[in-house]
Amino acid sequence: MEKKEYNHPVSLRNIQITDDFWKNEMELVRKEIIPYQWEALNDRVEGAEPSFCMRNFKVAGRQNQERRDKGDAFEEPAYTFRGFQALPEDMEHLEDKFYGFVFQDSDFYKWVESVAYSLTAHPDAELEKLADEAIDIVCAAQQEDGYLDTYYIINGKDKIFSNLRDHHELYCFGHLAEGAVAYYEATGKDKLLKAAMRFADYIDNYFGAEEGKCKGYPGHEIAEMALVRLYEVTGEEKYLNLSSFFVEERGKRPYYYDGEKHPEKIEKGKENELRYHYHQAHVPVREQDEAVGHAVRGVYLYSGMADLARLKEDDSLYDACEKLWDSIVNEKMYVTGGIGGTHIGESFSFPFDLPNDTAYAETCASIGLVFFARRMLQMKPLGKYADVMELALYNGILSGMALDGKSFFYVNPLEVLPKACHLDERKWHVKPVRQKWFGCACCPPNLARLLSSIGMYAYTEKEDTLYIHLYMGSSVKKEIHGQTADISVASGYPWNGDVHVSVTGCFAEFTVALRIPGWCKEYQVEGISDAKTEEKDGYLYITKSWSEGESISLHFPMEIRVLEADTRVREDVGKAAVMRGPVVYCLEEVDNGENLSLLSLSADGELEECSLEIAGTYVKAVKAEGFREESVENGTGLYQEYHKKKKVPVILQYIPYYTWANRGENEMQVWTRVE
Amino acid sequence: MEKKEYNHPVSLRNIQITDDFWKNEMELVRKEIIPYQWEALNDRVEGAEPSFCMRNFKVAGRQNQERRDKGDAFEEPAYTFRGFQALPEDMEHLEDKFYGFVFQDSDFYKWVESVAYSLTAHPDAELEKLADEAIDIVCAAQQEDGYLDTYYIINGKDKIFSNLRDHHELYCFGHLAEGAVAYYEATGKDKLLKAAMRFADYIDNYFGAEEGKCKGYPGHEIAEMALVRLYEVTGEEKYLNLSSFFVEERGKRPYYYDGEKHPEKIEKGKENELRYHYHQAHVPVREQDEAVGHAVRGVYLYSGMADLARLKEDDSLYDACEKLWDSIVNEKMYVTGGIGGTHIGESFSFPFDLPNDTAYAETCASIGLVFFARRMLQMKPLGKYADVMELALYNGILSGMALDGKSFFYVNPLEVLPKACHLDERKWHVKPVRQKWFGCACCPPNLARLLSSIGMYAYTEKEDTLYIHLYMGSSVKKEIHGQTADISVASGYPWNGDVHVSVTGCFAEFTVALRIPGWCKEYQVEGISDAKTEEKDGYLYITKSWSEGESISLHFPMEIRVLEADTRVREDVGKAAVMRGPVVYCLEEVDNGENLSLLSLSADGELEECSLEIAGTYVKAVKAEGFREESVENGTGLYQEYHKKKKVPVILQYIPYYTWANRGENEMQVWTRVE
Repeated sequence: MEKKEYNHPVSLRNIQITDDFWKNEMELVRKEIIPYQWEALNDRVEGAEPSFCMRNFKVAGRQNQERRDKGDAFEEPAYTFRGFQALPEDMEHLEDKFYGFVFQDSDFYKWVESVAYSLTAHPDAELEKLADEAIDIVCAAQQEDGYLDTYYIINGKDKIFSNLRDHHELYCFGHLAEGAVAYYEATGKDKLLKAAMRFADYIDNYFGAEEGKCKGYPGHEIAEMALVRLYEVTGEEKYLNLSSFFVEERGKRPYYYDGEKHPEKIEKGKENELRYHYHQAHVPVREQDEAVGHAVRGVYLYSGMADLARLKEDDSLYDACEKLWDSIVNEKMYVTGGIGGTHIGESFSFPFDLPNDTAYAETCASIGLVFFARRMLQMKPLGKYADVMELALYNGILSGMALDGKSFFYVNPLEVLPKACHLDERKWHVKPVRQKWFGCACCPPNLARLLSSIGMYAYTEKEDTLYIHLYMGSSVKKEIHGQTADISVASGYPWNGDVHVSVTGCFAEFTVALRIPGWCKEYQVEGISDAKTEEKDGYLYITKSWSEGESISLHFPMEIRVLEADTRVREDVGKAAVMRGPVVYCLEEVDNGENLSLLSLSADGELEECSLEIAGTYVKAVKAEGFREESVENGTGLYQEYHKKKKVPVILQYIPYYTWANRGENEMQVWTRVE
Repeated sequence: MEKKEYNHPVSLRNIQITDDFWKNEMELVRKEIIPYQWEALNDRVEGAEPSFCMRNFKVAGRQNQERRDKGDAFEEPAYTFRGFQALPEDMEHLEDKFYGFVFQDSDFYKWVESVAYSLTAHPDAELEKLADEAIDIVCAAQQEDGYLDTYYIINGKDKIFSNLRDHHELYCFGHLAEGAVAYYEATGKDKLLKAAMRFADYIDNYFGAEEGKCKGYPGHEIAEMALVRLYEVTGEEKYLNLSSFFVEERGKRPYYYDGEKHPEKIEKGKENELRYHYHQAHVPVREQDEAVGHAVRGVYLYSGMADLARLKEDDSLYDACEKLWDSIVNEKMYVTGGIGGTHIGESFSFPFDLPNDTAYAETCASIGLVFFARRMLQMKPLGKYADVMELALYNGILSGMALDGKSFFYVNPLEVLPKACHLDERKWHVKPVRQKWFGCACCPPNLARLLSSIGMYAYTEKEDTLYIHLYMGSSVKKEIHGQTADISVASGYPWNGDVHVSVTGCFAEFTVALRIPGWCKEYQVEGISDAKTEEKDGYLYITKSWSEGESISLHFPMEIRVLEADTRVREDVGKAAVMRGPVVYCLEEVDNGENLSLLSLSADGELEECSLEIAGTYVKAVKAEGFREESVENGTGLYQEYHKKKKVPVILQYIPYYTWANRGENEMQVWTRVE
């Protein structure tokens, strides 16, 4: 790993997404999610649990002012909050206290981050004004010492950082920093950024390796990568070092969390391993070689580790990242790019334990996997990282949002029988239809911030090279020896694999590194006769001096593929999944009738693509030859002598996995028996 | 349903079991379980959680005496117990308070019931003396008013019957009555029976339809059938009526339990249905047509309902029983006779939801199903009831105990990957090896009382008919018009289907009704040339005057059968199970190698029986032609292009399901893919 290899995301200010597919997703964020979420943050969504988010900031700000007015002394209200505070009957008569989850502040930070990205792509003075005013409210809650978490400001600051494991102060800070950097980069306004820095300084004074400082670290990771981002925009080394401290401290013994008082009882004999695994704090990070615990926390940590490995040129930390990457991708990832095999602790399960119908596969976890992948790509541009990024994006992440952008999945199962979701408590986490919003609203805003910043994942650059990791209609500006190259990409992704890249405005030689998707066996390329080319690690490096308007064309044939799983994935033995290009397909009851478990895919059968309209959206679907096995329902006993079943040839109608559950509640299945 | 049809169990005093198979099981109860359990009841088993059972009786008895000595007034200690009280560090310094589960008293009652049955088959003066002394200790704890539950006697009687839903006073009473009746019938000693009657009288004064009486009913059913048993041995109508009151009151609205204060919080929106379903209290019993909730509670209730239907000649109650029976057998029963598809609430899941690897299938629930079946048989001798009784006995019940009688399963899964049981919290209820004892010790003593009274399920009689429901080497005495017929049965069950019945000591005409197993397609019978015979509802009725020593012979060919499940059982689609006679078979890793999911059974292949020794026991095993699919483990990614798998022909070694997990921890599977 040599530093010269490093690349970094292209600023969103230099990217314009023009693509039908992704532009549509970004417009859903802009037109649907951001306005809706603003209403949610202000408790104005009828029928939804109130967020209390902006309300808490206002209360904290007012108390702040009152305290300033009368001098200093803090009131110390009764200290009874933890988890969600039940909704009061009457919103009008709320007391001036903290309501909602302990991490409620982060809702605003995620919102403002999405707003920032959206403003970059689509300036909107009204939205910016709204955000500025909201930032004023948030900043008014900040304490004079820089501390900013309304839960503790309202409930009593004497208890700050007393429960790092379960409370989310450092998590909220992380989102504050992410949002503040994004808003600064989008608008040049630094009020929120300064607030984030002041809080970061406060935290830096509180935590650290130096004697007398607290040796704790976040229970829910994100501050690690957020501090790096703050460092990258401010140049303040202390933020980088604080991030490093949090990462290095994790998992040391004696466990820091043992010194905290936690309200719940832990089952005897399970005090240690399980609880610490959940937080990835079971051993120091360099000794971690299996992805365990809460999946979102995991990939957030690994993302921060990758940032640090890059910036500190730390090979052993990179090695740990690579082991964790392999653990996920080779043992713990669904074919959709979903991660988290169990809802218990929203966690990774043991290797190869990837049940389809009880999957957790949280939208946020796949988003975090994209964060992790991009950071690995920054160090080593290997196609395998971008392949996973692409897989997660087009499947396990997009499935998190309805085609109209109005409802969301937290959990993305690979097999659903709606009846089971309603009647079987083991599957209550699996919803057969998307929901409007969540009390614990992490997935929709996380989707919003990812989709509206998709360009930061499509492109990275270094001095003389532009990496194109994801194909989408877009144009990118890149400085090359004082000239501004304007690189345009046109693509039929994800429905066809034609890619055209053209350059204007620059005559100097530079390199475009085009990713060759792992799913593509053979590709064609045109327009490179005068170029130096090299294919390496899943990228085609094309180095040339570009004539004005000259273009190169790539074609990645999107054949329909039938996939099998490692046979250690017990639930998929004897089954197959269908993909085409980056898109995973599934069967839905509405197309294929009920009892999907009776269907099988013909191993020798024809597969052909077709166009299909799903809830107003046209997609490429797949028709496949298969069979429907006769059903045996005799009503007078469950078991009878085995007989060879009649199998009626049928045409299986596959649809893109991410479009499922857009036509009402019905059965769905990704892995189908094959014969 | 006409009363003349009714039959009743033959007294154990008139049955001698001589069978190799069942005598062995009874001897394990006598030699292993009863002595071990006595040690457990007295907290003398090293490494096991103490039971505190006898200790609580002693403490209650001593406090009782002290109260008597000083007059009356109760002390009212702090009222802090619920569920299991954590084990004190030092047994020597226990305070005089209640320890253990609220239902700890029942451990003794179950023990004494097993002792009673064992004494009947195998008189043992020393054991009887031990039981008598223990009964003295128990009876000393009884209050002067008849109340007898040490949890409330020790903690304060002002709270009795205040939490019928969760506490187990009426459950403990039910076991007291069952144990007391059994001990009286075995020994003629009535001390414990009188104690049970005094407590029953107390309960009868407290609960009832009359104004001013409490309208509650047991949270954990058993009192319903126990009161019937008490009625049958005492002739006291009030006990029958109290049972009827409990059954009829259940599920009425407003819900009785709503008037109780329960400590736990119930999730909003789920207050009613789920909690009441758990207790089968969601609607009145006559409106229940689906078996729901805690499976053991369910079948205990249905057993009581069947008793009442018979004794009260209540057709509508019988109809309810029949609907519930059908619900279980046609929609909710594993092929092993296991019931309870989910560990959540140890409950029935929704129809056809019978997952193999997360099954609950509690040993006690299958035992309760046998109770229910026997009672249905008493009303209508239909082969279908005895078929289920037989199925549960030879499979889902016997699997609950190791071949050496020294360890036990609570949960009887149909598929086990040991790694998953250790690493996946969703399967923590599934144990890959049997355990020595349980803190909540319901299954081992329940097994003990069933196995040692097996004759009460093998035979029922009415005036001129002896029903033989289960075949085992045994002899039965039956009074026929003043003569004592001695009916001997010899049988090779469960390994061969030869049955010989001979009669001595009686020349009068009477009927022997021999069950024709549902699994038997064609049978042969000899020695009936001079008899009136009728085949009806799964029984062959042979009526004749028996010459001394004359015998009839039946032969039920035990062919190996390959079974399929109703295709609505999603987990079993494309799979088959193997049976031979009443025995269900399974594959174990120790015989078939790891990754059992890669094996398949050849639909056209040969199946042949063979003898096999398992942990010192010889059984009939089955060898079957099948295949092992090539494993795909490439280590560099979970998914790859599908290819037709090589399948190596293998001989699958099937063993009786009940003998699994006697050769160390390993994979097991009942349902195997078939092709």
